[in-house]
Amino acid sequence: MTPPPQWVKDLKPSGPQGSDLLKAERAKSKINVEKLSEFLFTKAELERKERILNILMAEKVFDKSNNYFDGRVDKFKTALARAKRMRQLQVKHNWTADDYMVADSLISEPGPYGLHASMFLTTLRGQGTPEQHKLFLEPAENYKIIGCYAQTELGHGSNVRGLETTCTWNPEDKTFTLHSPHLTASKWWIGSLGRTATHAVVMAQLFIKGRSYGPHPFVCQIRDMKTHQPLDGVYVGDIGPKFGYNTMDNGFLLLNKVKIPHINMLAKFSSVDPETGKYLKPSSPSLIYGTLTWVRSTIVLQSGGVLARGVTIATRYAAVRRQFQDRDSTDSSGSENQVLNYTMVQFRLLPLLASCFALHFTGKAMMELYQENQKNMQKVAEGNADSNRGAGPEEIHSGSDLVADLHATSCGLKALGSTTAAEGLEVCRRACGGHGYSQFGGIGSWYADYLPTTTWEGDNYMLTQQVARYLLKSARSVLKGDAPSNDTTRIFTTFLKKQDMGAAHDVLGSDSDLVAAFAWRTSFLTFEALKHRDLEKGSWNSLLVDFWRLSTAHSQYLVVKNFYEALQDESLRYSLDPETISVLHNLFRLYALNTLEKEASEFYSSAAVTVRQIQLARTKSVMKLLEEIRPHALRLVDAWQFPDWQLDSSLGRKDGKVYEDMFYRASQLNPLNGLTIDPYPDSDVLVKNDETAKFKAKL
Amino acid sequence: MTPPPQWVKDLKPSGPQGSDLLKAERAKSKINVEKLSEFLFTKAELERKERILNILMAEKVFDKSNNYFDGRVDKFKTALARAKRMRQLQVKHNWTADDYMVADSLISEPGPYGLHASMFLTTLRGQGTPEQHKLFLEPAENYKIIGCYAQTELGHGSNVRGLETTCTWNPEDKTFTLHSPHLTASKWWIGSLGRTATHAVVMAQLFIKGRSYGPHPFVCQIRDMKTHQPLDGVYVGDIGPKFGYNTMDNGFLLLNKVKIPHINMLAKFSSVDPETGKYLKPSSPSLIYGTLTWVRSTIVLQSGGVLARGVTIATRYAAVRRQFQDRDSTDSSGSENQVLNYTMVQFRLLPLLASCFALHFTGKAMMELYQENQKNMQKVAEGNADSNRGAGPEEIHSGSDLVADLHATSCGLKALGSTTAAEGLEVCRRACGGHGYSQFGGIGSWYADYLPTTTWEGDNYMLTQQVARYLLKSARSVLKGDAPSNDTTRIFTTFLKKQDMGAAHDVLGSDSDLVAAFAWRTSFLTFEALKHRDLEKGSWNSLLVDFWRLSTAHSQYLVVKNFYEALQDESLRYSLDPETISVLHNLFRLYALNTLEKEASEFYSSAAVTVRQIQLARTKSVMKLLEEIRPHALRLVDAWQFPDWQLDSSLGRKDGKVYEDMFYRASQLNPLNGLTIDPYPDSDVLVKNDETAKFKAKL
Repeated sequence: MTPPPQWVKDLKPSGPQGSDLLKAERAKSKINVEKLSEFLFTKAELERKERILNILMAEKVFDKSNNYFDGRVDKFKTALARAKRMRQLQVKHNWTADDYMVADSLISEPGPYGLHASMFLTTLRGQGTPEQHKLFLEPAENYKIIGCYAQTELGHGSNVRGLETTCTWNPEDKTFTLHSPHLTASKWWIGSLGRTATHAVVMAQLFIKGRSYGPHPFVCQIRDMKTHQPLDGVYVGDIGPKFGYNTMDNGFLLLNKVKIPHINMLAKFSSVDPETGKYLKPSSPSLIYGTLTWVRSTIVLQSGGVLARGVTIATRYAAVRRQFQDRDSTDSSGSENQVLNYTMVQFRLLPLLASCFALHFTGKAMMELYQENQKNMQKVAEGNADSNRGAGPEEIHSGSDLVADLHATSCGLKALGSTTAAEGLEVCRRACGGHGYSQFGGIGSWYADYLPTTTWEGDNYMLTQQVARYLLKSARSVLKGDAPSNDTTRIFTTFLKKQDMGAAHDVLGSDSDLVAAFAWRTSFLTFEALKHRDLEKGSWNSLLVDFWRLSTAHSQYLVVKNFYEALQDESLRYSLDPETISVLHNLFRLYALNTLEKEASEFYSSAAVTVRQIQLARTKSVMKLLEEIRPHALRLVDAWQFPDWQLDSSLGRKDGKVYEDMFYRASQLNPLNGLTIDPYPDSDVLVKNDETAKFKAKL
Repeated sequence: MTPPPQWVKDLKPSGPQGSDLLKAERAKSKINVEKLSEFLFTKAELERKERILNILMAEKVFDKSNNYFDGRVDKFKTALARAKRMRQLQVKHNWTADDYMVADSLISEPGPYGLHASMFLTTLRGQGTPEQHKLFLEPAENYKIIGCYAQTELGHGSNVRGLETTCTWNPEDKTFTLHSPHLTASKWWIGSLGRTATHAVVMAQLFIKGRSYGPHPFVCQIRDMKTHQPLDGVYVGDIGPKFGYNTMDNGFLLLNKVKIPHINMLAKFSSVDPETGKYLKPSSPSLIYGTLTWVRSTIVLQSGGVLARGVTIATRYAAVRRQFQDRDSTDSSGSENQVLNYTMVQFRLLPLLASCFALHFTGKAMMELYQENQKNMQKVAEGNADSNRGAGPEEIHSGSDLVADLHATSCGLKALGSTTAAEGLEVCRRACGGHGYSQFGGIGSWYADYLPTTTWEGDNYMLTQQVARYLLKSARSVLKGDAPSNDTTRIFTTFLKKQDMGAAHDVLGSDSDLVAAFAWRTSFLTFEALKHRDLEKGSWNSLLVDFWRLSTAHSQYLVVKNFYEALQDESLRYSLDPETISVLHNLFRLYALNTLEKEASEFYSSAAVTVRQIQLARTKSVMKLLEEIRPHALRLVDAWQFPDWQLDSSLGRKDGKVYEDMFYRASQLNPLNGLTIDPYPDSDVLVKNDETAKFKAKL
């Protein structure tokens, strides 16, 4: 591609210019963006982001110009170079774990050390003995060995107890033998395993003298430390291209009777006595499940920001993009309307903007609850030691209602939060019209990379069973009268007291009634499900759809409640001006009323509200809220503080130079334009001239 | 990647084998797959597909082994080679247009001749004079020139009248000057333009003596016929990577005062008198809009099959994949349950299976209606000639109620059909769990390539305004008493007669009442919208969300009605056995009742049904239908007759060898496994050994 001639360089977009439109948009609102950002993230976090952003932007290897063009192999090579540099910077600047996470989030692509830095180190740290820390954790922390966490198999995902890989104790030489008895035993989807890892924590069924003791973690070296070639009996590789996440080498692993020493079984919680071959039971499995709760809570907290990226891009572009005149317009100039002015666009984008805030506040509350409960759980776990081997989390937690509540809450909110974010991103992408389909839009690849979150750490549909199980149990204890005092049992008790009188929630006039209506619906659905299960003896399988609805309803209640409570907080009035607070209240109402209207059927049938109220919720309240929030839309997305460098989006540019950027990327960065072809079918020549490689070199 | 050692080759998936599971599934049902396929597609069409499949499979260039691995540039090169070979085969085998379309569908990727073979030829044929046919169409049909259709611009999509490219008549030398006055005037998204086309039909605002006559089509040569380099004043290239569709070179085009001769304005409908410079009005613009209606009808017809690919893959895999024991199971063997047995999976997949049939029958009915109306429209158009210049389709069609009905129907169904297919494919992908995220699953890339269909040929949200406008107009004429007799006015009349008595549709007991309930809801929403617009004088913009709901409701009614009518057809009893007919009736009910339940709120508030009926619809009817349809699921997807070669999916293999195929592709075809890296961050060596190119060579 030759550089554009002068006449092309002289062209500007037709007016009004995007930059002027965004300026005008920002002038419509008095929200103090900086204060709102600090309220959402704290000043310290914003400064951290700024500091790390400057470090990254100065490094050529992190330049993003080529990201949307590379094929899989080149993508992976670049990601590896970036991962190495990230580690070097971490050492150089003495980055904390939080610093590292911020850098990772700014780069916004999964990298080949991803599972080493997270699950491998966490597992070694949490499940290894001091001796094992010395042997494995120390070199791993210094990147002398690179590891991964190999649990999922070709034939088994969610059902961990069904894993096929075996690990057999050999009393004669005090070793274990790891083995893949079938093709479906192949480890699969293991991040960082495909090309990168030297070691793996392998989850395998422990066998001692022919008896099975369930899945346990074993450290296994898989590649030579010098040649990086697979060791004998190890067949390992990358599982191939995915819908997204292609900078990561998710891998497979088959093991053919691979011997490992006794010390390689991670032994903090359970172990095998090397002398007697006796199995020693786990001392506190709750702590393991605590990690899962923490991971899910993190997903909830992140889901607001994940979605906010898409909403930022789509909202900014909707303010720059103009299509058609308003049909009732009397303006004869023919000037077109910003698409953000159309109610159909507002109806698609602004409830998602409200969701970003709702999920953010919910995630923060979850994290606080998690921290509080950690101490409590420690005590419970110590008290319950040795009594729960092999049981699932729902049974394990029976000793502690707080833990059970947190577990169920994290399951339900993980499912709701990640589904909302993933599906919301696609709504944002489509709201950008045709250009949303271009990779330069910046939403498509972000969406594609995020999608696995709906499946991992508990499939979003599977998780809803955990929530339902917990709610049914709580309902039973309320009926029996031996319920602990917590929010769930409180709303159930209220429901039972009032159900014959009816509810009469003033959802349009009172915010607390709005929260109560969501609580009412959860309670109604819980007791309905309980009736089906306990009285009508419905099979578990026949109730799965009900459980899924119940879990969704309950999680929506939690989000509404958390958003409401965040706005009641005293600190609000000291941090924010009244106008901003009022807009946040509108966002709360928009989230709640829009959800109520979308799920209308359950609100009717539970008699939480009347048909008339629902109709009004949409035709009056929601439409009015859209109108009231619309002038603040730009400043509200600005408050999420995504640097352009992070968004990497033509459509979402903070300065509104959408079309200039689209054109620059297409004409000056796009390697395909280095290819001159022979277009005629009767010629066997495909390519007349291939200069595609020059584009790569230029960057 | 070295070939797998013998111990790997010896491994099989753990039992039961996928092939046995699928055999057992097929044995559960007595549906005659062959007969059902012939009923859906006709025997002749199935034979055509078989014949062409065999031709394509014998050609090395169409081998799909490398499809999921290539980067953009390689993808495009391969697609060009395939496009050339397709054209050669077309000539060699004397393929008809239908043959070509079948080949295209089997290859299943957009190719660089895509817009040449469709819009370029169609436009030349439909809008050119005999002289222009000789000059442009003949060489185009022989691929001596390769063209594209350049309408959309960087700054304008849906609003064609807002296009910025100008074409000015030069009386002095009887030429036109094509020009891009702004950057946003750049043509954008133009298929086949980026690297392939030699010519373009450019839509530009015609100016004569300073006066604008609106957008018209002009033929413009853009590249040299020998060197394939852009001509002077032409700046053209590929617009860059997209979320999908990367085998196509969607392009941009800027023109700097490019002169074209008088003959290059396509002049069948309107033209400029070369002597006087007088503008000659279009003679029958309806015919142009007829093409759009045809394109939309095609999208409706295809949407069923598009979705059926995903449903086929997900259903087959759900029969092979096993996870967990049923919770109530008393089986102590520990053997796991096929995921298709879980009601949560059935609830996600089987209504989509029903949608495939519903959309297929609706599309067929649309096409028949279109053919019938073509003759009628021809007459109307001739009668109305010269009276409608520059008006949009809604005004143009006012002379013919049938045409207006078809236009509105095609808009609404295009939106509903393509949205259902696109979103349904993503549901199918997620229903495959983790493996659905692998490209080997075969749904992801198919979905990504299909997505633009929700935006092009009328954005799915924009189109709903056309439907609402038509329904409002029909309602007004029913109120006035001057309505033509058609289905729409008939259901409105029924509604007006009965609205005070209430409806009392027996949706659970009677299929015709089920159809009537959908008609009732459409009517209710129409008269509500009419009240807001005509009585309360609500602005058009304030009603867009109502219009979108109305259009969706009306289109769902049409699908339910068409599905119902297809099952009333006499031919059914001669073509199919009673068991198959009964299953089709169940699919009809599942589609209708599941839709009714999902959209419950509008069915309540219109009083089409009672709250109790809706509750029963889900808890009893839908769940029971899932149970009844489930044993037939495999045979029902088999009836869509997708060859494995077309699906290109490990998960959707007809023989159930899911895991073997996943493993083969990952370990033997995946180029990334040719890369041996240095994994340590303190080493600047990235790659120790790069054999990735060998994979390409091997294929």
